[in-house]
Amino acid sequence: MRLKHVKGAHEIIGCSSYVIHNPEIYRGRFQEFFGNNHDIHIEIGMGKGRFIIENAKRYPEINFIGIEKYDSVLVRAIQKLEEVDLPNLRFIRYDANDIEELFEKDVTALYLNFSDPWPKARHERRRLTSVDFLKKYDAIFCDKKTIIQKTDNRNLFEFSIKSFTDYGYHIDEMSLNLHEDTFIDNIETEYEEKFVSRGCIIYKVEVSKE
Amino acid sequence: MRLKHVKGAHEIIGCSSYVIHNPEIYRGRFQEFFGNNHDIHIEIGMGKGRFIIENAKRYPEINFIGIEKYDSVLVRAIQKLEEVDLPNLRFIRYDANDIEELFEKDVTALYLNFSDPWPKARHERRRLTSVDFLKKYDAIFCDKKTIIQKTDNRNLFEFSIKSFTDYGYHIDEMSLNLHEDTFIDNIETEYEEKFVSRGCIIYKVEVSKE
Repeated sequence: MRLKHVKGAHEIIGCSSYVIHNPEIYRGRFQEFFGNNHDIHIEIGMGKGRFIIENAKRYPEINFIGIEKYDSVLVRAIQKLEEVDLPNLRFIRYDANDIEELFEKDVTALYLNFSDPWPKARHERRRLTSVDFLKKYDAIFCDKKTIIQKTDNRNLFEFSIKSFTDYGYHIDEMSLNLHEDTFIDNIETEYEEKFVSRGCIIYKVEVSKE
Repeated sequence: MRLKHVKGAHEIIGCSSYVIHNPEIYRGRFQEFFGNNHDIHIEIGMGKGRFIIENAKRYPEINFIGIEKYDSVLVRAIQKLEEVDLPNLRFIRYDANDIEELFEKDVTALYLNFSDPWPKARHERRRLTSVDFLKKYDAIFCDKKTIIQKTDNRNLFEFSIKSFTDYGYHIDEMSLNLHEDTFIDNIETEYEEKFVSRGCIIYKVEVSKE
C-alpha cells in the first residue's frame, strides 16, 4: 500500500475514542475492556478499516479490534466512524511484530487481508503467515484458534497454505477465486474492490486449530 | 473426456507387449515384473499416455505403470509407442475403484492428471482424491507415499488440498498457476496443452506422507 502523509493524523488518532491508547494494560483481559464476554476478532493491518467496520456493524455480538501500524491509514478508518457509535469496535496502533505483547489468550479469530507478500525468499519470516508469526499467534489465541486470510498474491497464498497446514492448522474453507464463489458471504476491503475491478483473482482461506 | 469408439482397440490392446494382461499375479511384487528394484510410479487415468510416456523416456531409472479404464484411449497410448522400446513402462487396463486389488506396497508415487472432477456433492466419494480413495492408496503405497495432482478444475483442486491435508499429507510443492511458474519442470498431458492454449489456469500440488 502506498502511504500518503495525512496532515493532523497524529492528533486525530490521539483524540479518538475508537483508539485504545494504552492497550498493554488490557493484555489478557480485553473482554473486561469491552465489558462483556463476547469473542474477540482482530484484524492485523486493517488499513482504512472498511472490512472491520462493516464486520462490527454486521456482528454486534462480536468484539472487533483493528491493528494498524501506520497513522496515515488508521486516521482514514477513524474518519469513517464520525457520527457512528460502534461499542464493539476499537483500533490499536501497533506493530504486528510485537503482537504477543498486546494480547494473551484474548483472541478467537484473526483476519489477515491483503498482507504484505514480502516476495523475496530472504524476507519469508516477515510474512504474517510465516512459522515465526504462527508461533506468536499461539500466545494471543484462546482455545479457539481461527485465521482467515484473503489475498490477491498467489505466491503468498501458496506459502500460507503450506505454512498453516505444516503448523497443524486444518483448512475449514478455501476459495481459489472468491469472487466467483457467490455463495460465500464476503465483506470487501478497499484494496480488494479496486483489484477485483481490474480482474485480479482473490484467494481466501479459513483455517483453525484446537 | 469424450470417448470415441476406436475400431480394433480391443485386439490392439490384447496383442500389445506394453500391456500387462494378468496384472493381479504381480500384486506386491511388481519390481520382480520389471526385473529391478527401481521405484514404481503410477498414473491413474493416463488417457492417451503422453505424460507417462514422456516421463518414462526422461527417467529410465523409474518404472512407470499407466492405469486406464477405457480401451479407446489406452489404444492411443499404445499406438504412440510403435517402434519405441521403453522397458520401464507398462500399461494396465483397470478400474481405479479396485486399485487396492492391483497393488500392495508396490508404489512410491501416484500421478493424478486432470481426473474427473465429479462436481456434484453426492458424487464426492468418486473423486480420486476423496478420503475413500486416499484409504485405498494407503494399501498400494510402500513406505514412501507421494501424490502429484494436476487439474484445471478449481473446485476439485480446493477439495483435494483439504482432503490431502485432512488425511495427514504434507504439501511439498504447490502452484496455483503452473504455467506461470516456469521454474517448475512440467510434462504436459494432451488435455493440458489444449486447455492452456485456451487460457485455463492449471493447478498442481505434490503431497507426501510417511
